[in-house]
Amino acid sequence: MAEKRPDRALDRTELIKQTTLELAQEVGFTKLSIEAVAARAGVGKHTIYRRWPSKGALFLDALLPTDERVTDFPNTGDIEADLRTQTYAAVDLLGRPPFGPLYQALLGEAQHDPSVAATLNERFIAPQAQRLRARLKLAQRQGQLSPEFDLDLAMAILSGAFYFQFLVTQELVSHNYVDRVFSTLFAGMRPRRGGEHQPKEALPARHVPS
Amino acid sequence: MAEKRPDRALDRTELIKQTTLELAQEVGFTKLSIEAVAARAGVGKHTIYRRWPSKGALFLDALLPTDERVTDFPNTGDIEADLRTQTYAAVDLLGRPPFGPLYQALLGEAQHDPSVAATLNERFIAPQAQRLRARLKLAQRQGQLSPEFDLDLAMAILSGAFYFQFLVTQELVSHNYVDRVFSTLFAGMRPRRGGEHQPKEALPARHVPS
Repeated sequence: MAEKRPDRALDRTELIKQTTLELAQEVGFTKLSIEAVAARAGVGKHTIYRRWPSKGALFLDALLPTDERVTDFPNTGDIEADLRTQTYAAVDLLGRPPFGPLYQALLGEAQHDPSVAATLNERFIAPQAQRLRARLKLAQRQGQLSPEFDLDLAMAILSGAFYFQFLVTQELVSHNYVDRVFSTLFAGMRPRRGGEHQPKEALPARHVPS
Repeated sequence: MAEKRPDRALDRTELIKQTTLELAQEVGFTKLSIEAVAARAGVGKHTIYRRWPSKGALFLDALLPTDERVTDFPNTGDIEADLRTQTYAAVDLLGRPPFGPLYQALLGEAQHDPSVAATLNERFIAPQAQRLRARLKLAQRQGQLSPEFDLDLAMAILSGAFYFQFLVTQELVSHNYVDRVFSTLFAGMRPRRGGEHQPKEALPARHVPS
């Protein structure tokens, strides 16, 4: 008997992942079961368990973005522009089905089930924080980022405002909102050195929401 | 027949709220029911529905902090210190039962049920954002905060890093972490004017985690 061709295994992996997302959209993450995925994909339950240890791991693998525009930070030499570019792609993905509602459901589940939270952090949040950190470290070396900026806080500070909108106020995040957040984070909250109290009217209106 | 004394009605309101939190800790927010609260509190279901239109509204009313140290921003004339003081109280509350796990469960439910999210925003997030905005506006007038700081973003930026830790990485937030976040937000990410590239080694180690 011939060995399975690698692309056949890949096809099967893709089929299982796609079936998982389809079913999750229909019944929600909570009611999703590996049995139902196996049945619809026409594979044995053990075929799934050989690849993924749990429903959470399978769902995350199926859901998490593989699009480099979402996960990777470009390097054009302008750190603020590069952060904006990656974040536009991320908030666009969050703002539309199927990813947005499914990722929201996953985060809802992570509040009840610590193993879902752990898998999410291990599989996505920590690697993403590492990519962000590496891009910021480069910017720091190039003098584009304050040498005092605390890289350990980067993920919480730079993505916190967007997760807050996504999970708490549940408002859509526009590109304009992304621009305003980064503009504010780069400028900082402290008045300029010397403490001159410039009247608000004299300042350029670059932060006014449009 | 004598009218009910107002303090009696207040006692009953408090009893219903306390019973709600007790039951929520036992069975979780999802399985909490107004019927069960009514039975344990020894009141009629309609007594509860007269005060609260839904389970979500009752639970929020029972749960949300009334402690002014958590909701109010002091005004000592030092905006960074005042933000730290309020945030210490808020993260302390988040870090311990019963509030922490119940608020987390509520936010989990808000990802599945838009009416829970709407009630949370209307009853707690929006008023809290208003209090924060008022305190920051005063600081701006006193020259303690950059006149360019975008007050519309204040709640998302100032609380986003903490909600990110609470909901996504699910790590406890220490007072030291609070200090580092505010220190970073006040300083901003941009290098100092003039673009001098100070070697990292020459800087005071004030951002190093302890």
